[in-house]
Amino acid sequence: MKELVRELGDVVSTDAAVLEEHSRDTSRAEPGGLPAAVVRVHSATEVQTVLRWATTHRVPVSVRGAGTGVSGGALAYPGGLVVSLAAMNQVLEIDAPNRIAEVDPGIIVDQLDQAAAAHELMYAPDPVSYQTATIGGTVDTNAGGLRCLAHGVTRDVIAGLEVVLADGRLIRTGSRTRKNSTGYDLTGLFIGSEGTLGVVTRVIARLKPRPVGEAVTFSAQFPTMAAAGAAVATIMASATTPEMLELMDRNSIDIVQRHFPSAVAAEGEALLVGQTIGTDAQQQAEAVVSACRDAGALLAEAGGGEELLDTRRMVNPALNAAGLALSCDVAVPPSRLAEMFERIDDISVQTGYPVNTCAHAGDGNMHPSVLAANDSAEEVAAAEHVLTLITEAALDMGGVISGEHRIGSLKTGMLAQQFDPDTLDLQHQLKGFFDPVGILSPGRAI
Amino acid sequence: MKELVRELGDVVSTDAAVLEEHSRDTSRAEPGGLPAAVVRVHSATEVQTVLRWATTHRVPVSVRGAGTGVSGGALAYPGGLVVSLAAMNQVLEIDAPNRIAEVDPGIIVDQLDQAAAAHELMYAPDPVSYQTATIGGTVDTNAGGLRCLAHGVTRDVIAGLEVVLADGRLIRTGSRTRKNSTGYDLTGLFIGSEGTLGVVTRVIARLKPRPVGEAVTFSAQFPTMAAAGAAVATIMASATTPEMLELMDRNSIDIVQRHFPSAVAAEGEALLVGQTIGTDAQQQAEAVVSACRDAGALLAEAGGGEELLDTRRMVNPALNAAGLALSCDVAVPPSRLAEMFERIDDISVQTGYPVNTCAHAGDGNMHPSVLAANDSAEEVAAAEHVLTLITEAALDMGGVISGEHRIGSLKTGMLAQQFDPDTLDLQHQLKGFFDPVGILSPGRAI
Repeated sequence: MKELVRELGDVVSTDAAVLEEHSRDTSRAEPGGLPAAVVRVHSATEVQTVLRWATTHRVPVSVRGAGTGVSGGALAYPGGLVVSLAAMNQVLEIDAPNRIAEVDPGIIVDQLDQAAAAHELMYAPDPVSYQTATIGGTVDTNAGGLRCLAHGVTRDVIAGLEVVLADGRLIRTGSRTRKNSTGYDLTGLFIGSEGTLGVVTRVIARLKPRPVGEAVTFSAQFPTMAAAGAAVATIMASATTPEMLELMDRNSIDIVQRHFPSAVAAEGEALLVGQTIGTDAQQQAEAVVSACRDAGALLAEAGGGEELLDTRRMVNPALNAAGLALSCDVAVPPSRLAEMFERIDDISVQTGYPVNTCAHAGDGNMHPSVLAANDSAEEVAAAEHVLTLITEAALDMGGVISGEHRIGSLKTGMLAQQFDPDTLDLQHQLKGFFDPVGILSPGRAI
Repeated sequence: MKELVRELGDVVSTDAAVLEEHSRDTSRAEPGGLPAAVVRVHSATEVQTVLRWATTHRVPVSVRGAGTGVSGGALAYPGGLVVSLAAMNQVLEIDAPNRIAEVDPGIIVDQLDQAAAAHELMYAPDPVSYQTATIGGTVDTNAGGLRCLAHGVTRDVIAGLEVVLADGRLIRTGSRTRKNSTGYDLTGLFIGSEGTLGVVTRVIARLKPRPVGEAVTFSAQFPTMAAAGAAVATIMASATTPEMLELMDRNSIDIVQRHFPSAVAAEGEALLVGQTIGTDAQQQAEAVVSACRDAGALLAEAGGGEELLDTRRMVNPALNAAGLALSCDVAVPPSRLAEMFERIDDISVQTGYPVNTCAHAGDGNMHPSVLAANDSAEEVAAAEHVLTLITEAALDMGGVISGEHRIGSLKTGMLAQQFDPDTLDLQHQLKGFFDPVGILSPGRAI
């Protein structure tokens, strides 16, 4: 460690408050103890120095942007190093004619989007934490967001990366051209690898034209979640893809209203809200509303305000305020949504635990949550069991155990249900190829 | 070999005509000799058997769909095995509500698109060879096509794969959900790996709604390629992305007219043709035409017929008919197109070789060709040198040595100019990880 301090100076901190502050993300995962040091790097060269040192001394490294992850991926290792990229936070270039941005990994997603907006462009992925999350973190997790229904997830918009490997080598992937047929797709491989294959030190992102025309919000209330799920399947099989299509169940609406009493009221067991954007936004929104009515909506209207979407955005804060919420992140093919919601109801009835479900419905991605009555091991285990049953139901329907939050340190136990043994083995071997000593977020992601 | 024949029976052919027929692709690359056998597999299990045998006996394997590749990727190895996937050619499922197709690797691209069309969906990537190329081949090469400007290349539409590894293990990547945040992105890694990392035995593809509304073709003639390039940069920086945006230089137009005299005539040094589709297609096409006029087009009109696009599609057949055409496949950021075309003109003047350039202009991807006067080694080397100068010019502009045709066996010599040493080393090491004995298309792609 002295060697590292000598080489890097005061970017290496062992201050107890700093260690504490950098030891967890926003998930319920608990670090086993404090890291030995936090290294707040300012350059790729510093990252190379840190990883070389860590490989030589076999010290585990966790990588951190803003710590907004929800799967325990950035949790500190006791006695390990935390590499924080938060200080590498500049927009290096907006190449507007080619719709490319080149940025440091520590820049906040919203800051990149705002820099793009100055050129009438946008950086599309908008995880709920877009005002605090860093680009590097969203690359490591392949983050989604509300508008990824129409514009794709992080993987769909990243053109290239600069990455420092575990042994300190620096490599570059991708290109700034629109097409590139050279070499293996290392860009895609690093995206979503949760910092286990390398540390991203620069990001080349593709921007899109900022949608012009009005945004029209629509909403529909349904007597059951299954009815809402059927409506979503119909909408997603139609020619019109809304910009956003979000769903909340009764429990989610209630919990939002309990904690934010001014939030919009809604009848029925399910509230579908969304937005269309463009010159024909009103017409598109009316097509969606019409599909909702055909699917049995109690009330459906186009032209509501942005506050309807705010209700959706309040679910996470309300759950956090409500106490110990355990949630999962499954995804199923959109046509199976109705069936999936019925299964969740059945599981809730069978276990006696109420479940709140909100969903990026158009993507078939949902976040069922269970509130644990207290933090006793038994109670948490019982709540976890409810989520396990829900996850197994999703797998039965050709779904996945994570749609957008990834695996981190919380969900590795379920990987063997998602992958056949040879496929999972290959991933472990690939991790060993990139990081033979196993210093980069060992034991996580795969 | 007897062992393999015993296990697989008459799917293993050593017939001289079959060997000859399966030994080359459509590039100018020459195999060094005939393969020992062609294995026309019918199942993933047979692929596993072949690769296990080849790994055990250290026999090189080339993988082949329809042999439409243009970079020598499917060339037979003398004494090696050719695995042909052409007989695995079924559409296994069209899941219309979820816009997913699951298919065998040997199905022809157009057949998949037609199967999708029956559900008002489309499989978007349409390489010029879409009526003969197989899906597996387009996955291995990450093929583009005319309409990939608006709809993305192969990588953008593949949701998952089944792959047999060199040691015979079978793995599955991706999922049928719209979002998936589990495990490493092996799907992307195999796409474009030219058969060097594994053999794709099943493909899960994403379909899109088939565009509705009329298709409007537009065209514009320019006094110089640079002027046309500047027009393309403007169009690509505007809010309207045409469905197709193709460019031909005077030499390309002339060669088409020489070989297909009924082809459309055009004045000027450059012909830009394209198409818009949708309810506002006419309006969009007029916006493009207006941008062309502002950029100095001699003649520009919206509403021409499909035959304009046919002219573009005739360039390859005309070049083939003209004799020994050597071509390259560089891509640059669209804003650099005008400069790139000026550089090509300069190189043509300096070397005394006329160059034909046609381009998937909107993507910044172009195929400059040089006709060799004869097939003497000196003449071919001189023509190659012209292409090398052009490729170096593209690299100078932040471009890539291949936009869509990949590296195959023809372009490996230029990889060191595209990649820094550590990045290229990593790719060689990754190949070694997947295929330690080196049986799968050794020496190609990277």
